[in-house]
Amino acid sequence: MPRFFAQKRAFTGTAVTLEKPDSIHIGRSLRMRIGDEITVCCEGEEFICHIRTISDESVVCDIISSEMSRNEPDVKVTLFQALPKGDKLDTIVQKAVELGVTNICPVLTSRCVARASQKDFEKKRARLQRIALEAAKQSGRGIIPQVGGLLTVAQAAQQLAENDFPLICYECGGENLGSVGLKNNSSIGIFIGSEGGFEKSEVELCTSSGAVAIGLGPRILRCETAPLAALSIVMNLTGNM
Amino acid sequence: MPRFFAQKRAFTGTAVTLEKPDSIHIGRSLRMRIGDEITVCCEGEEFICHIRTISDESVVCDIISSEMSRNEPDVKVTLFQALPKGDKLDTIVQKAVELGVTNICPVLTSRCVARASQKDFEKKRARLQRIALEAAKQSGRGIIPQVGGLLTVAQAAQQLAENDFPLICYECGGENLGSVGLKNNSSIGIFIGSEGGFEKSEVELCTSSGAVAIGLGPRILRCETAPLAALSIVMNLTGNM
Repeated sequence: MPRFFAQKRAFTGTAVTLEKPDSIHIGRSLRMRIGDEITVCCEGEEFICHIRTISDESVVCDIISSEMSRNEPDVKVTLFQALPKGDKLDTIVQKAVELGVTNICPVLTSRCVARASQKDFEKKRARLQRIALEAAKQSGRGIIPQVGGLLTVAQAAQQLAENDFPLICYECGGENLGSVGLKNNSSIGIFIGSEGGFEKSEVELCTSSGAVAIGLGPRILRCETAPLAALSIVMNLTGNM
Repeated sequence: MPRFFAQKRAFTGTAVTLEKPDSIHIGRSLRMRIGDEITVCCEGEEFICHIRTISDESVVCDIISSEMSRNEPDVKVTLFQALPKGDKLDTIVQKAVELGVTNICPVLTSRCVARASQKDFEKKRARLQRIALEAAKQSGRGIIPQVGGLLTVAQAAQQLAENDFPLICYECGGENLGSVGLKNNSSIGIFIGSEGGFEKSEVELCTSSGAVAIGLGPRILRCETAPLAALSIVMNLTGNM
């Protein structure tokens, strides 16, 4: 069933109103009709709805039933991702959303080849957030994972430490993800380097704030492969995949 | 250190000879010189060598020491991958090699949109094998994982069943990978569908031959994400990542 996301303010009583571009998508691309069923998600809750009215401007839906999304993991994983080259972050965002990430925080580390300013990055961020939205629809998420603004390493280290399980993937090795004791209903932060990985001082900054350095085995993973491997393993170890 | 692969016949006594295109790469791109150190891999063994002579045609290396590669997983994983659309198989091959796969066997299933004949596929296969070679060099593998010819579902089901742990990822759900009892020093086969997944009859064909249907959680993974998630989890569960 087609799946859309709405904000809380779109709900009034037993109805929810979808606006552009969803209204165009529903009416023109999907050619849906009055009475057709769609799913509208809002903050982890899924509403089964029947379409009441359709126009290019808005689609009003009657809520038939609702339940908490069964597709959301019971861990909140924040991916701190050092800015990779080219459009690799697009791929990382798309796949991380499929795999169940909650937040993605891009970080500018010493070895980032891409040297975007925070201002430059804001332009990219809008595109990345759209990629996250589309991936959330396609993969059946109950929330839209958020792509944050560009962080410094110091900011990332601090926010990483706020998680129940702060982890940093270090190419020079570390604990196995299976031995960290990850638990359900917890917050997990994972910091992944760009091409060339991390400076030792960056890893030390994170571990001195409580993060655990983890290793992803002896093979060298590309910077877009590492986050997907780490997320897959974390979701499996916590019973969410 | 630069890493190259050679076949057994390239070794004579305490020397190994690399030919084109490696000789061009060593002499021209890397601008290496006589006496420089390189690693030559052959069937899981790594040879530390010093360059004795360089020409465009060949590079002769003296073997200084050798050891079995420490980067190879102790499980032999064969990925049976239903042919996806476009160039997604390129990405899957590259990432699967990084993650430690041993063999990749493309399969033509009912829901494959790409309907390549075995003959058409042979042209693609050469390119895929080159991608596997490059990924093996970059990720530090001790072997070059092999990309096989295009299989029918019946052939894939039969070859899948020859593994100690034959697994098929079913979008309609199945066992959790963590509950399958995967063991070290075993052979593991993983069959992954294309866009749209598998026909029920295809899954039944595999399970009737002994395969276990596994699920990768409630979120819908794209067909290029599923193999990478499954491989990451398998490598972690067997202590190889």
